[in-house]
Amino acid sequence: MPLISANTKDIQFVANELLNLEDHYQQLPPCRDMDAETFEAVVEEANRFLLETAGPLNRNADEQGCTLEGAEVTTPEGFKELYQQYCDSGWNGLDAPEEYGGQGLPYLLSVILGELNTYYCPAWADYPMLGHGAREALDAHGSDELKRTYLPKLTTGQWAGTMCLTEPHCGTDLGLLKTQAVPQEDGTYAITGTKIFITSGEHDLTENIVHLVLARLPDAPAGTKGISMFVVPKFIPDENNQPGERNAVSCGSLEHKMGLKGSSTCVMNFDGATGWLVGQENRGLNHMFTMMNGARINTGVQGLAVSQAAYQGALDYARERLQSRSLSGPKYPHKPADPIIVHPDVRRMLLTMKALAEGNRALAYFTAQQIEKTRYSDDEAVKQRAAQLQAFLTPIVKAFITESGIEATNLGVQVYGGHGYIREHGMEQLIRDGRIFTLYEGTTGIQALDLLGRKLLKMQGGELGPIAEEIQAFLDQHPDSPYAETVSRYLQEWQQLSQELAAKSQQNPEEVGAASVDFLMFSGYVLLAWLWARMAQVATEQLEKGGPMGQNFYRSKQKTADFYFKRLLPRAGTHAATLRSGADTLMAMNDEEF
Amino acid sequence: MPLISANTKDIQFVANELLNLEDHYQQLPPCRDMDAETFEAVVEEANRFLLETAGPLNRNADEQGCTLEGAEVTTPEGFKELYQQYCDSGWNGLDAPEEYGGQGLPYLLSVILGELNTYYCPAWADYPMLGHGAREALDAHGSDELKRTYLPKLTTGQWAGTMCLTEPHCGTDLGLLKTQAVPQEDGTYAITGTKIFITSGEHDLTENIVHLVLARLPDAPAGTKGISMFVVPKFIPDENNQPGERNAVSCGSLEHKMGLKGSSTCVMNFDGATGWLVGQENRGLNHMFTMMNGARINTGVQGLAVSQAAYQGALDYARERLQSRSLSGPKYPHKPADPIIVHPDVRRMLLTMKALAEGNRALAYFTAQQIEKTRYSDDEAVKQRAAQLQAFLTPIVKAFITESGIEATNLGVQVYGGHGYIREHGMEQLIRDGRIFTLYEGTTGIQALDLLGRKLLKMQGGELGPIAEEIQAFLDQHPDSPYAETVSRYLQEWQQLSQELAAKSQQNPEEVGAASVDFLMFSGYVLLAWLWARMAQVATEQLEKGGPMGQNFYRSKQKTADFYFKRLLPRAGTHAATLRSGADTLMAMNDEEF
Repeated sequence: MPLISANTKDIQFVANELLNLEDHYQQLPPCRDMDAETFEAVVEEANRFLLETAGPLNRNADEQGCTLEGAEVTTPEGFKELYQQYCDSGWNGLDAPEEYGGQGLPYLLSVILGELNTYYCPAWADYPMLGHGAREALDAHGSDELKRTYLPKLTTGQWAGTMCLTEPHCGTDLGLLKTQAVPQEDGTYAITGTKIFITSGEHDLTENIVHLVLARLPDAPAGTKGISMFVVPKFIPDENNQPGERNAVSCGSLEHKMGLKGSSTCVMNFDGATGWLVGQENRGLNHMFTMMNGARINTGVQGLAVSQAAYQGALDYARERLQSRSLSGPKYPHKPADPIIVHPDVRRMLLTMKALAEGNRALAYFTAQQIEKTRYSDDEAVKQRAAQLQAFLTPIVKAFITESGIEATNLGVQVYGGHGYIREHGMEQLIRDGRIFTLYEGTTGIQALDLLGRKLLKMQGGELGPIAEEIQAFLDQHPDSPYAETVSRYLQEWQQLSQELAAKSQQNPEEVGAASVDFLMFSGYVLLAWLWARMAQVATEQLEKGGPMGQNFYRSKQKTADFYFKRLLPRAGTHAATLRSGADTLMAMNDEEF
Repeated sequence: MPLISANTKDIQFVANELLNLEDHYQQLPPCRDMDAETFEAVVEEANRFLLETAGPLNRNADEQGCTLEGAEVTTPEGFKELYQQYCDSGWNGLDAPEEYGGQGLPYLLSVILGELNTYYCPAWADYPMLGHGAREALDAHGSDELKRTYLPKLTTGQWAGTMCLTEPHCGTDLGLLKTQAVPQEDGTYAITGTKIFITSGEHDLTENIVHLVLARLPDAPAGTKGISMFVVPKFIPDENNQPGERNAVSCGSLEHKMGLKGSSTCVMNFDGATGWLVGQENRGLNHMFTMMNGARINTGVQGLAVSQAAYQGALDYARERLQSRSLSGPKYPHKPADPIIVHPDVRRMLLTMKALAEGNRALAYFTAQQIEKTRYSDDEAVKQRAAQLQAFLTPIVKAFITESGIEATNLGVQVYGGHGYIREHGMEQLIRDGRIFTLYEGTTGIQALDLLGRKLLKMQGGELGPIAEEIQAFLDQHPDSPYAETVSRYLQEWQQLSQELAAKSQQNPEEVGAASVDFLMFSGYVLLAWLWARMAQVATEQLEKGGPMGQNFYRSKQKTADFYFKRLLPRAGTHAATLRSGADTLMAMNDEEF
C-alpha cells in the first residue's frame, strides 16, 4: 500500500457543500470570520503536513512500537520530531482559545485534524488527542489557578495529557474504582492506586505529562457518586511553571497489544502522588464526561479514518493488480489479465468501504456541528437543541462508525487477497490498529445502552425528537428526491421501533439491553440513508450548476448513494427483525447451559 | 484466556446423535467396524493429547514465530517435539491406508483432528494439514513408483508436504503462471521459477519436504490447460529411499504476517530443481484440485475451530468478570458486581458465537460425510449423489464458515472489552490467526463464484438438486418441528433465488459475480437453519429418552436453535434483498469515479 493522500476533496464536500459551513458559522459569533476558503486552506495544509511527516512513520511505528526502560517510555522513531513540528506549526492548539496560545479555530477543524492524524498514522493520533481532551476537561472544570498553570502548556503541546479511569477490576463499571485520594494539609491530595490502559501514560514526547485521575476521597459515598477528579502532573510545576519535582506516579509496564503499537498504553502506579482537585468533590465522573464525550466523537472519526484508508489502499491495488478476465469479456485485452476492479465482487467490496466511510464522515461532521452550536452559539434555544442532538448522536457516532471500521478494514484486506495478510502492505495493520476503536472510550454495548436506555428512553421519553425533525425537514424540502419515500419509510419504522421499545422496557428492563446494539445499528443505517439522500441531492444540484468538484466526483456521489440504498440499507431490516424478537432468546439460557 | 478443553461433547453430538455415524458407516464397507464408542475414544484421545501438547505452545508460537537463517527455517519452541509425538502416536496417518502405515480410520476423524489441531494452536495445524493434502494428491494421481517412494513417508509424517501454486503475479488466476518444467533425458524435469505464500515450504520438523509444484512444460498451451503437476523433494530420495542429494529448491524468505506466525509461509525458489511428473501432462490443475477440495473443507473447519475457541474463551471470561449489575436487579448480590454473563448484550454475543460454531460444525461434518460416501461406498448411485452434494457444499463450507469465523473471533474480543486487545489473553490472536482463512485456498469471492457460477448454474442448471431433497426429507419426516414452516419458506426462497439468477445470468454474466457472495451467505444461513432445526429435533427426542449428554446439553441445543432462528436467520433476508438489487449499482461506476 503506497502512501496515498487523504481524500480532502470529500472532506471539503461534506463540510462545505453538504453542511454549508459558511451559513453555519455565520450563526455562531466567534466563528463569523471562517469562510470556505480559509477552512479549505487549513485542511489542505494539515493534509500536506501529515502526508509528509506522519504518513512515512506509520509502518515502522507498528514494527518498532514503544519500549519501556526503567520507568521511561521511548516512542517509535520520528514521533518525537513529528510532535515537535506539529506543536511548532500550531496544530496542537488548533481549536484552543487564543488567550492560552491556541489558534481559536472552530472545533470541526480539530475533528478533521484528528481524522487526518489517524488516516496517516493511527498510533500517532492518540498523543495529541489525549492532550486535547485533558485541556478541554480542565478548561471546563478547573479552577482559575489550575487553568493558568496547565492550559497554556497543554495548548502549545509542551505538556501532554492523559485520562486515568480504568483499574484492573473495573473499566465499564467505574463505580467499583478503588484509587484513593487523601487530603493533605496544604490543600493537595495524596493519590494512591493502580490505573491500567492509560493511553499516552508515559512517553518521550514532552517535558511533562498531565494526568487527570479519578479517585475516591476517604469519606466518599460508594459507587459512581463518590468519584472525584484530580490533576496529577508527572513533574510538579515550580514557581516559574516549569517541570519541578518528580511526582510519585510512574509507568509500571506497557501493554502488549494487537495493534496501535506506537501508542503507549501504560499501567500507571500512583504511590501517594500529589494531586489537585478538579471541580467539585464527588463530581469527577461528570467532569470526566466532558473529556469522554469529545473522545467518543474523536474515536468515531478514527473509525472512518481507517475505513477511508482501507478504501484508498484497496482501490489502488484493485486498479493495479491484474488477475482473471471480466465475466463479460476482456476489458483490457492488451494486458495479460484485467485489473481486478472490473470484477463485480471487488466493486461490491470497494463500494461498501466507500459508502460507509463517506456516509460516516457526513454523520460525524454533522454531529461535530451540533457541538459547535453548543459551544459558540449565543442563542439558548439553538444551544439546547444542538445539545440534545449531540447527546443522541454521540453514541451512534462512536459505535456505528467504529463497527463500520471493522467491516471496512476487513474488506480492505479481502480485496488484496493473500497479500492483505502480509504486514508490509499495511492493510492488515488497519484491522489491528482499528480494532481498539469499538473497545476504548466505552464499548459498542455501552454506547448502545447509552443511546437506547439513557438518551432515547430516559431523556427523550421514547421519542426521536430533534433528529426526526431534521430528517423530516429534508423530506419536506425535497419531496422529489429519488430516496424520499425510502427515507420516510425508514424514519417511520425508526419511530415505531422506539415506541415499541419504550412500551416493552416498562415491562422488562432486560428488553433494553437485548435490543440495544441492534437499535443502535438500525439508527446508524437510517441516519446514513438520510445523509446519502442529502449528498445525492447536493451532487445533483452541483452537477447542474457545474460545481467545483467536477463531474466525476458528483456522479460518483450519486452512484454511491444508489449503491447504499440498494445494497447496504437493507441491513437495517435485519436489525429491526432481530431486535423485535426481544429478550427471551437471550435470557432463556441458564448460566450452566452456555 | 486459560487453556480450556475443546468441546468434544458437541463433536460427539454432531457426529453420533445428529449424523448417526453408526448407520452411516454401516453403509460404507471399509468402515463397518467403526462404532460410536471407538469414534468417541479416538476423538477423546486426540483431544487429551493436543490439550496437553499443542495448547500450551500456542501463545509462544505467536510471539516467537518462525525464523529464517540462511535457507533454514526454525519453527517455534516445542513444535519439533510436538510433531514427533504426533507422528509417533499415529495421528499423522489417521485416515491413511494401512498399506502405507496409516490407521485406516474414516476421513471425518481426520477432519475432526484438524479442528482440534486448530482449536489448540492454529499455526501448528497447518503442518500436518499440508502433509495430509500432499499424500492424498499423490495417492490419487501419482504413478506406482511415486506412491512407493512418497506415500509411506508422508503417512508416517517422516516427510512433510506442500502445495506450490501461487506466484508473485498470480494467485487466483493460475492461468498466468510462469514456472517452467523442462524435460530431462532421464525422464525427470528441471523446474525453475518462484513460488510465494508456500505454507510449510521450509521448516525443521522433518528430514525431507515433498513439494507438489504446478509448472508449465515448454510446449504447453497457454492458460490453465497448460499446467502440469510435479513432485519436487527437498532432498532427492536415494536408493534406500532415504533423503539423498539436496535438490535445487530453497526458501528465499519468510513472509511477515498478521498472524499464524508459527506457520512458515515461504517464498520458494526453484532453480532447475529436479521434479517428477505427477499424473498427466497439462492436467496439473485438475490433479491439484484433489488436494484443494480437501484443503477447502479443512479451512472451513479451521474457521469453526477458532469460532469455538473464541466462544469458550469469552464464556469463561463472562462468567468470571464482575462488572455492573443486571438491568433487572442484582443477580449475585453477595459479589461486588454481577458477572457480565447476566447482561443481555453479552449473551447476544456469546450465543452468536455458539450458534455459528455449532451450526457450522454440523454443516462441515455433514459435508465430510458426503466425502466419505464418495470414497468408501460401493454403490455408484450413492457415490454420485454424495459427490454432487460435496461439490455444491464445499465452497459454502470454506467461505461461509470462515466468514463466520471473522465475526465470532471479533465478538470474542468484544466480550473481553479492552482486555481483548491485549495479547496475553489470546483473544486477539484468534482474530489474527483466523483472518487468513477467508483468503487462502481461494478467497470468499472465488468460493462464491464456484458455488453460483460453476456448481449451481453450470453443473446443476440453476437447480438446487440433492441438497434441497435433503432439506425436504427433514420437513417431510418432521412436519411438527417448530421450525418446519420457517425452513420450508427459506428453502422455497432459495430455490426462487436460484431460478431468478439462472435467468438473469443468461442476459448478463456480470449478474453472477454481483450476486455471488450474497448468494453464498444466503445459502449458508439456510443450511444452518435446516441443521439447527434438525439439532433441536434430536435434542427434543433425546430429552424424552434421557440421552447421554444430559438435560443441560439438550436444553442448550433447543435454546440455541431458537436464538438462531430469531436472531441470526433474519440476516438471510438482507442477503436476498441485496443480491436481488442486481449488478447495476456495481457496474454503473466508471473506473475513474471510484
